[in-house]
Amino acid sequence: MVATIRISEIFGPTIQGEGALIGQPTVFVRTGGCDYRCSWCDTLHAVDNEFRHDWTPMSAEDVFADVEKLSGGVPIMVSLSGGNPAIQPLGGLINLGHAKGYKFALETQGSIVKDWFADLDVLTLSPKPPSSGMDTDYDLLTECITRAGDNVDISLKIVIQDEADYLYARQVSARYPELPIYLQPVNHTPPPVDNMDEKIDIDGIMSRMRWLVERAEQDQWRDVHILPQLHVLLWGNKRGV
Amino acid sequence: MVATIRISEIFGPTIQGEGALIGQPTVFVRTGGCDYRCSWCDTLHAVDNEFRHDWTPMSAEDVFADVEKLSGGVPIMVSLSGGNPAIQPLGGLINLGHAKGYKFALETQGSIVKDWFADLDVLTLSPKPPSSGMDTDYDLLTECITRAGDNVDISLKIVIQDEADYLYARQVSARYPELPIYLQPVNHTPPPVDNMDEKIDIDGIMSRMRWLVERAEQDQWRDVHILPQLHVLLWGNKRGV
Repeated sequence: MVATIRISEIFGPTIQGEGALIGQPTVFVRTGGCDYRCSWCDTLHAVDNEFRHDWTPMSAEDVFADVEKLSGGVPIMVSLSGGNPAIQPLGGLINLGHAKGYKFALETQGSIVKDWFADLDVLTLSPKPPSSGMDTDYDLLTECITRAGDNVDISLKIVIQDEADYLYARQVSARYPELPIYLQPVNHTPPPVDNMDEKIDIDGIMSRMRWLVERAEQDQWRDVHILPQLHVLLWGNKRGV
Repeated sequence: MVATIRISEIFGPTIQGEGALIGQPTVFVRTGGCDYRCSWCDTLHAVDNEFRHDWTPMSAEDVFADVEKLSGGVPIMVSLSGGNPAIQPLGGLINLGHAKGYKFALETQGSIVKDWFADLDVLTLSPKPPSSGMDTDYDLLTECITRAGDNVDISLKIVIQDEADYLYARQVSARYPELPIYLQPVNHTPPPVDNMDEKIDIDGIMSRMRWLVERAEQDQWRDVHILPQLHVLLWGNKRGV
């Protein structure tokens, strides 16, 4: 039996809108299913079981064939996202892609650990702050870092809604001082799943950004990155870009 | 005689809005004077000789005292900007700061080379595309890279107004394939120097970003970064942030 990957959507090339790879061309492979259910989740269509009938079981070969087609066969960074893509068996896909010069970046909350983390090029760990309603298992988060090892570019990315979230980010950063950390204002107008075209609130995003910049400076926090979700500024909550 | 630095403004901490350090806390040291006069310059107050009476000659010690005060004595990245800061004698300032744990990033068009480039932590070379009205001297640009050497993080940042600028960026990138490259839509509504509060055109910026993302993808250009001027989104053309 071949392990299949539960796919919500494959799209791109577009640019990565978040974190360490912001602004870089990428193809997204978004898997379906998540062990979390964050209050402000902005990709419910890949998370909520209600949408499971929209998720397609695909072989690694078929997924990579789609990636190759979208990218015209020219190697690109593949962003493995979700949902929580760590649920899926992605090791085979990574090996197929590496053989052709593609690279792979995984984004996961750090609640599920896999051996294939060591095969990644980039690992973004995004443990969820208090406003998400989720708890952080630091043993598992640490194990993600350990299992990935020294050959993977690892960074932290934390969504911030409020002061409690900010303090959480400070704590996480203090636990893992060796990891670059990216703070990102929460998408405070996540899309209703039936209307992705709704106008976003750019002024609200920027005012949250300014608050975060000032808040970090109050603590003289200097080795931090504060970035908006660039794709939301560019395309709103539209899917597939 | 002590060499003085011609200062236009020193401000921060704020976050770096452009290029490789986007989103990172920094203090700006903006020097006055420029050997270029780009058509779309958005810092004329530090470029045009008309404003030279607003520029203050300061010793490296006095500049660093201001940086230390602004940063509360907690080391931070110092962004050396202009005008063209390569005109100024900045080696002493860099040494003073390094002794206290500060880091230094220089942004320059690459038309003037100094030995102290080798002492920088970060060097952003921003040769100017055709729409600027300026010409690129590639011998000098190459010499900047050589003089900085292997211990400096060097990247290219190119402002893009139109197709000719984009093709120029492609050429520059092909000449220096080892350097990360950042493309940035031109600030198409640069501030009149007497009214920094004028509303910026966010929709225009984002539509230029989308064009650039699509343009790069037409060429299947994959090792590129496409980023807006984050500080303009956050604070408009206001000075001192």
